[in-house]
Amino acid sequence: MIDFKKLAQEYQTPLYVYDLEKIQEKFKAYKNAFSGRKSLICYALKANSNLSVVHQIAELEGGADCVSIGEVKRAILAGIKPYRIIFSGVGKGDEEIKEALELDILFLNVESYQELLRIEAIAKDMQKPSRISIRVNPNIDPKTHPYISTGLSENKFGVELEEAKKMYLYAHKSEFLQPIGVHFHIGSQLTELEPIAQSAQKIAEFTRSLIALGLDIRFFDVGGGIGICYAQEKVIDLYDYAQSILAALGGLDVTIICEPGRSIVGESGYLVTKVLYEKYTNKKRFVIVDGAMNDLLRPSLYDAYHRVWFQEKQEELFQADIVGPICESGDFLAKNARLPKMQSGDLIVFENAGAYGYSMSSNYNTRMRCAEVGIKNNQTYLLKSREKFEDVVADELDNLRKNCE
Amino acid sequence: MIDFKKLAQEYQTPLYVYDLEKIQEKFKAYKNAFSGRKSLICYALKANSNLSVVHQIAELEGGADCVSIGEVKRAILAGIKPYRIIFSGVGKGDEEIKEALELDILFLNVESYQELLRIEAIAKDMQKPSRISIRVNPNIDPKTHPYISTGLSENKFGVELEEAKKMYLYAHKSEFLQPIGVHFHIGSQLTELEPIAQSAQKIAEFTRSLIALGLDIRFFDVGGGIGICYAQEKVIDLYDYAQSILAALGGLDVTIICEPGRSIVGESGYLVTKVLYEKYTNKKRFVIVDGAMNDLLRPSLYDAYHRVWFQEKQEELFQADIVGPICESGDFLAKNARLPKMQSGDLIVFENAGAYGYSMSSNYNTRMRCAEVGIKNNQTYLLKSREKFEDVVADELDNLRKNCE
Repeated sequence: MIDFKKLAQEYQTPLYVYDLEKIQEKFKAYKNAFSGRKSLICYALKANSNLSVVHQIAELEGGADCVSIGEVKRAILAGIKPYRIIFSGVGKGDEEIKEALELDILFLNVESYQELLRIEAIAKDMQKPSRISIRVNPNIDPKTHPYISTGLSENKFGVELEEAKKMYLYAHKSEFLQPIGVHFHIGSQLTELEPIAQSAQKIAEFTRSLIALGLDIRFFDVGGGIGICYAQEKVIDLYDYAQSILAALGGLDVTIICEPGRSIVGESGYLVTKVLYEKYTNKKRFVIVDGAMNDLLRPSLYDAYHRVWFQEKQEELFQADIVGPICESGDFLAKNARLPKMQSGDLIVFENAGAYGYSMSSNYNTRMRCAEVGIKNNQTYLLKSREKFEDVVADELDNLRKNCE
Repeated sequence: MIDFKKLAQEYQTPLYVYDLEKIQEKFKAYKNAFSGRKSLICYALKANSNLSVVHQIAELEGGADCVSIGEVKRAILAGIKPYRIIFSGVGKGDEEIKEALELDILFLNVESYQELLRIEAIAKDMQKPSRISIRVNPNIDPKTHPYISTGLSENKFGVELEEAKKMYLYAHKSEFLQPIGVHFHIGSQLTELEPIAQSAQKIAEFTRSLIALGLDIRFFDVGGGIGICYAQEKVIDLYDYAQSILAALGGLDVTIICEPGRSIVGESGYLVTKVLYEKYTNKKRFVIVDGAMNDLLRPSLYDAYHRVWFQEKQEELFQADIVGPICESGDFLAKNARLPKMQSGDLIVFENAGAYGYSMSSNYNTRMRCAEVGIKNNQTYLLKSREKFEDVVADELDNLRKNCE
C-alpha cells in the first residue's frame, strides 16, 4: 500500500500519485495478449501525458497514439521512437500536419475527405509522401457515456464505410499519399466485448476489400477504449479481447495496432486530498477537501464515480458529499460517499484517477495545478512540480506593465 | 464592430478578444444603479481574472470578490486596493487565511463554523484580529442551472440563519474576530429579480436582529450572479435590482457590496476560432474549428449556448454542430447552429465568452491555451500570449532528466 500520509507531508496536497510499475505491468499485459501476432501498442497520451508516465512506455519500446502535435512532441521527448507514433484527431491544423510529416511519424489517422486533401497538398508542398490510415466508422453502439462514444454516425469521428472506400482509392492513386493502415475506435471506457468484436469483423472485411483492390494495407488499428472498474463495471479480459480481434483477421497479414490509454494509467493513479472542514446544512453533510473540479473534472463533467480511500477509524460511516473549494455547486468530487467523522488534515484519496485527471486540470479560480509524483521500486520521484503563482501570472503581468507604460 | 479577421491574422486563432471599454461601462452601470447609497462594487475575479481585465476595474476604483488567495494576489497586482478586496469560498486553507490577514483585505466571507474557528485561531497566532462577514443561506430557489445555484440548503455554500446567528454571537465575543458584514449569494446567471428581492429582505431582517444584539454590521453584501442574455433570457434591469435591495434596507446604515462577475465581462468577450474542415456523416453535418472544449468548457459542462458570428455569405444557412479537435464527443462548442457552407479559414466567433471562458481553460490534449487581447480606444493590446509548448513541458522535462540520471 502506498504511504499517502508521508507523500502528503513531503509534497503537500492536492497531489497526484502514480504507481509507475503498475503502468508498465498494464502495458505488458497488452503486449502479451497480442503475443501471437505482430503488434504495436500505442499508448494514448490524452489519458495522461506527463513525460515521465510516457517514458514508462518508451522503456518498454511501446508506441504512442497522439491527438495533437503537442502530444507528438511529448511522445518524442519521452523517448518514443517516431516510427511508433500515430497522430489522430478530427481537427489537425496545417502546421500540425507539416510538423508531423517533418518528424516522420508512422502515419496520420485521417478523419475526413477534406483533411485527406489538406494532407496531400501539404505533402506535395514538402515533396514528401505522407503515410496515412483512415478512421472508419463502423457505426456500432459501444454502450458507453455519450460524451465518450465515438463510433456512431452522429459522432464527429471517422468516416462512413462507403466514403472511406472512395478516400482509400483516391489516396492509392495519389503520388503523395501512402495508405498503409485502417483504423477504427468506437469509444472510451468500453465494458462490452461484443461491439468491439463486431467492429473488428466489419472493418477486417473492409480491409480485405481494400487489399483486393490493390492497396498495401499493413496496419490494422483497433483503437483503444478498454474500460476499467471504477465502481462495479465488468472489465474486458485482455486475452478475450485479443482473441476476438485475431478471430476477425483471418487471411490478413497485418500488424495490429492498439491504442489503450485509460486501461494503462487509470488504476495506477491517485488524487490525494486533505480535509479542510466538515459542514452540515439542514439537509446535507459536506466534507470539504483541498482538491477540486479544477484538479479532477470527471465527476462534474461526466458524473463520474471515483472510489475513495481514507484512514480507517473506530467510527460509524455516514453519508457525505465530498466537495472542493471552488465557488460553484458543480464542484464536487464524490456524491453520497460513506465516511466516518473527518478531522481537518485527514486525507481522502480518490482512486482510479490516473487517466483524464491531471490531463484535464485547469487554473479555474486561480488555483495552482498540483504536483505529480511517481513511485517505482519503492522510490518516489517528483514528475511535475506544483505550479507557482508568480509563474502563472508572469506573462499577464509583463503585458499589463507594457500596456500601462 | 470588431475586426475579427484582422485580429485573427495578427494573433492567430483560437483567440479571446475583450472589449475593455464595454467592461468599464458595465462596471459604471452598477456604480450608477447604487448611486444613492454607499456602495462598493467588487468584481468577481473567477469570471475572468486576466490582470488587464481586472485592471479596468481598478482604474474605476472598484473592489474585488476573490475565492482563492491566488485571486486576492491577482487583484492586488492589477491595482485593486486591499481594503476593497473580500475573500469568499467554502474551502480556504490555513495558508490562504494567513496571507489574507497579512495583506489586510477588507474582510473574509466565512462559510462554516469550523472555518470561523480556524480564522480565529490563525488571527490569534498572528495577534491580528480578522474582519469577517458570514455567508448566510437564505434558502431561496434562484431558478438557475443546478451547478451554479448556491443559496439552497442542499448546496455547500453559506450557513443556515440559526447557525449564522450563533456564529455572529461567537465572533462578537471573540477578541480576534470582528464581524462587520453580512453576506448572501443565491446563484449565478440569475434572470429573476424576485428571489433576490426576497433574499435581501430576509437577510436585512436578520441584519437588524444582529444590530439589535449589539453587533456593528457595516457591510451588506448581496453577492452577484446577475445573468446576461446568451439566447433569449430576460435580463434583470440594474435600476430595478438596486431598488429592490434598497427597499429591503429600511433603517440600516450599511455600505452595499455587490459582486458582479459574468454581467461585467460576459458580453465583452469573444472566442475567435477558425474553420478547419467541414464534414458530413450519414446523419449530421460538422463544422470543425480550431477552438475546443479546453478553450471554452461551458457548452460541454453546462450545455451552455453561445451565439455565433460568421462572415455573411450569399448562401443558404443549414444546420451543423460546431466541434473542436479534441478527441471526445463531448467536445462541441455549438449544437444545431445554422451556418452557410464554410470554407477552411473562415472565422466563427463565439459571443458572450468573456466570463468563464479563458478562466476555465486547460491544456487537455496538450493544446496550448490561447492568447487574450483587449481593445480600448480603437487600439489592440496583447493581454496574455499564446502558450508555448516548450514552456508547458519545461518542468516535466527537467524532472524526467533528473530522474533518469
